[in-house]
Amino acid sequence: MSSAIYPGSFDPVTLGHLDIIRRSAEMFDEVIIGVLNNTSKTPLFSVEERVNMLSEVVSDIPNVRVESFGGLLIDFARQNGVKTIIRGLRAVTDFEYELQIAQSNRKVAPEIDTVFLTTSIDYAYLSSSIVKEYASFGVDVEQFVPAGVVDRIKEKYSR
Amino acid sequence: MSSAIYPGSFDPVTLGHLDIIRRSAEMFDEVIIGVLNNTSKTPLFSVEERVNMLSEVVSDIPNVRVESFGGLLIDFARQNGVKTIIRGLRAVTDFEYELQIAQSNRKVAPEIDTVFLTTSIDYAYLSSSIVKEYASFGVDVEQFVPAGVVDRIKEKYSR
Amino acid sequence: MSSAIYPGSFDPVTLGHLDIIRRSAEMFDEVIIGVLNNTSKTPLFSVEERVNMLSEVVSDIPNVRVESFGGLLIDFARQNGVKTIIRGLRAVTDFEYELQIAQSNRKVAPEIDTVFLTTSIDYAYLSSSIVKEYASFGVDVEQFVPAGVVDRIKEKYSR
Amino acid sequence: MSSAIYPGSFDPVTLGHLDIIRRSAEMFDEVIIGVLNNTSKTPLFSVEERVNMLSEVVSDIPNVRVESFGGLLIDFARQNGVKTIIRGLRAVTDFEYELQIAQSNRKVAPEIDTVFLTTSIDYAYLSSSIVKEYASFGVDVEQFVPAGVVDRIKEKYSR
Amino acid sequence: MSSAIYPGSFDPVTLGHLDIIRRSAEMFDEVIIGVLNNTSKTPLFSVEERVNMLSEVVSDIPNVRVESFGGLLIDFARQNGVKTIIRGLRAVTDFEYELQIAQSNRKVAPEIDTVFLTTSIDYAYLSSSIVKEYASFGVDVEQFVPAGVVDRIKEKYSR
Amino acid sequence: MSSAIYPGSFDPVTLGHLDIIRRSAEMFDEVIIGVLNNTSKTPLFSVEERVNMLSEVVSDIPNVRVESFGGLLIDFARQNGVKTIIRGLRAVTDFEYELQIAQSNRKVAPEIDTVFLTTSIDYAYLSSSIVKEYASFGVDVEQFVPAGVVDRIKEKYSR
Repeated sequence: MSSAIYPGSFDPVTLGHLDIIRRSAEMFDEVIIGVLNNTSKTPLFSVEERVNMLSEVVSDIPNVRVESFGGLLIDFARQNGVKTIIRGLRAVTDFEYELQIAQSNRKVAPEIDTVFLTTSIDYAYLSSSIVKEYASFGVDVEQFVPAGVVDRIKEKYSR
Repeated sequence: MSSAIYPGSFDPVTLGHLDIIRRSAEMFDEVIIGVLNNTSKTPLFSVEERVNMLSEVVSDIPNVRVESFGGLLIDFARQNGVKTIIRGLRAVTDFEYELQIAQSNRKVAPEIDTVFLTTSIDYAYLSSSIVKEYASFGVDVEQFVPAGVVDRIKEKYSR
Repeated sequence: MSSAIYPGSFDPVTLGHLDIIRRSAEMFDEVIIGVLNNTSKTPLFSVEERVNMLSEVVSDIPNVRVESFGGLLIDFARQNGVKTIIRGLRAVTDFEYELQIAQSNRKVAPEIDTVFLTTSIDYAYLSSSIVKEYASFGVDVEQFVPAGVVDRIKEKYSR
Repeated sequence: MSSAIYPGSFDPVTLGHLDIIRRSAEMFDEVIIGVLNNTSKTPLFSVEERVNMLSEVVSDIPNVRVESFGGLLIDFARQNGVKTIIRGLRAVTDFEYELQIAQSNRKVAPEIDTVFLTTSIDYAYLSSSIVKEYASFGVDVEQFVPAGVVDRIKEKYSR
Repeated sequence: MSSAIYPGSFDPVTLGHLDIIRRSAEMFDEVIIGVLNNTSKTPLFSVEERVNMLSEVVSDIPNVRVESFGGLLIDFARQNGVKTIIRGLRAVTDFEYELQIAQSNRKVAPEIDTVFLTTSIDYAYLSSSIVKEYASFGVDVEQFVPAGVVDRIKEKYSR
Repeated sequence: MSSAIYPGSFDPVTLGHLDIIRRSAEMFDEVIIGVLNNTSKTPLFSVEERVNMLSEVVSDIPNVRVESFGGLLIDFARQNGVKTIIRGLRAVTDFEYELQIAQSNRKVAPEIDTVFLTTSIDYAYLSSSIVKEYASFGVDVEQFVPAGVVDRIKEKYSR
């Protein structure tokens, strides 16, 4: 059975992420979404909130499940017995950074490989940061995030 | 069963190509190497020679087979009932070009997707063109191409 | 009155070009589309055919007119008394090349300046070359070029 | 009447900024310089100081005026009834970032467009950050900023 | 006598740095490694520790010596009577940034020039930050840093 | 004695090339300009004409000499007992290509290294191709090439 991990912060999940998830689920028998619990950053949504939002958003895709992880991605992959990591690519500066991480990971964990999907053209401009910036100024973000996420973002910024 | 096509000119196959082939074969149940028969270019090796060389080189990988194709890659994929295309990425200029092709292909064949693997660092500098240029000036190309290919290149340039 | 030139080969005009033309016409009082008559290349459509196609395509935009030119763009701009050149940007490699041309032109014609518009995300992948390659293999190019252009391309390749 | 906004932090204004302002003023009937009041950063000059410096520097260009703004650029543009935003481009990494912002802005404010001017070659290396770093170590920044700005920077760092 | 400075933070020195140092020492009669004492960042190793580690690592290369410096690199170069700065290049984003610094430095110190060496392919992915991240999660960094440095990193993270 | 080779087509030499030559001559005891005799391209100037033009242009720099070469650059370097190659860098796409060549050369000739100088900002836009295109349309190229080269270009295009 072919398995793969799609890691990220998902703070919050965008339609761009969801596009990568759907396409990965077509390609692999099982896809695990790894939600990074990065203790050195202050996210808008807690890791539990992000796992819950993602679980709702992917509830119609049977071969996808959501988990959180701390520490190194390669350790999370090994714990799950998964040898393929999925990353979305948007731009050249993304590419440089992702290449560096992928090559380093292959040095310390040669059995784990990374595949890249190019973000669908409709979401190529999109990032969680831009969504949060727009939302913080009251711009409607309906066209950027899944339906269930819109209200939760509004709630965060209305406080 | 997950299948994927790894297309290219392979004129000739390099150790960089072979690295991508081995890693793809780990990831997918079946990998078809598609050797492009591009009638508008004059290759060093005929399409038959390229298919033969590749078949020898991958003979120890059970889930890989080699075929030639003309015309559009998406048509070749459809004829084989394959929905995933594999491409190797080396550099930024590669990336731009590959992104353009992948996005265009998704417009005319939305059911077919492209995944990218980054070329192993040891072969990141390598291309068939450089191999041919070195060989044409008598430089030994043993460290760039599979063992069986070395003599065939020498033979081409000794004529 | 603010005037600008949008130069190109337009072999053939795509929906990406048309997007840039419409947006330029919002920004400037007058836009001249300069169709390059490049004698060193063999285009699919003659310069007359390209001027005719473009004229039809922009017939509903009152402040746009179409002209052909040979030689240097800066000479064409000077003959028309225009000081602004419009270029569409798609990708990083585009950007490098366009930057080089724009900076060189400012050296030999300091009174002429270049502004860049980023191609609409829907057409960011699109080029006349890709349209021609698809069409040559019988792929429908309706989603890539203006309505009136589809049949003319088919006609070219059915001969 | 064609209007455009040239937004930025201008902390402080450099000769590179001034070059873009002069060229924009040739191209558009009216140019508004929008000085960003970014509450999350600590600038060297207060927003009032930056507006004053810029007003002096552009006092000889009749069709340019200076204003400060907080919040989103698209809201500032709408409040001024302006549909064109001007941005200077220096390098590839600039380009990627600017492209992302421009495409996002078109999604949430489709009536507003962004044009890019390439920074004059003489100032292509220049940024407000580099000016401040040099000045903080006592390097003369006369060749980087307008005459009136030199003394104000010295004053800041002599305290 | 040809002299050159190779500046950096070296927090800690990696095998990639050492590769650049060895190659520079082949090219120039004398190479000074300048260890930046950047007061605005909190390094893992103090500047004294970094100077000591580097001095050990290069003790077998007779024409290399190690010094620390604060302030501007061009001032450090002038104090040492050195007119050539050496920088390693890994990636496109490196290149953009390095180009900006090199061009700015030539404006304020025209007698000082910068040469670039491309990082050896084996270390092209490597950075001090990645080494520290791996080490902080207990990954063995023996293949990334010189022998003497491994234990000192372990010590830092075991506290 | 430190020696280096600066290779190129120099068809014709530009002020950008001359800038790199002068700076290299400051850095190394001896600089050999290697004029490539590329039999697969049709240059504007014969290799003899290019060697003569360059020899005149550098006649005031005592530690520079000009030679032509065919075949591989690494063979030319070995014949001259030179271990350092100098290349000028202008842009990102240059950088990618140059990196690939430098890394490949190190594989087949590990004793030879490549250093990069960034083209002076005043000539960053400049290439021999642009000079020839301008000249072919009668544009004065005095600001792009050394004095002695201007008339020779005019002569070529007046025939």
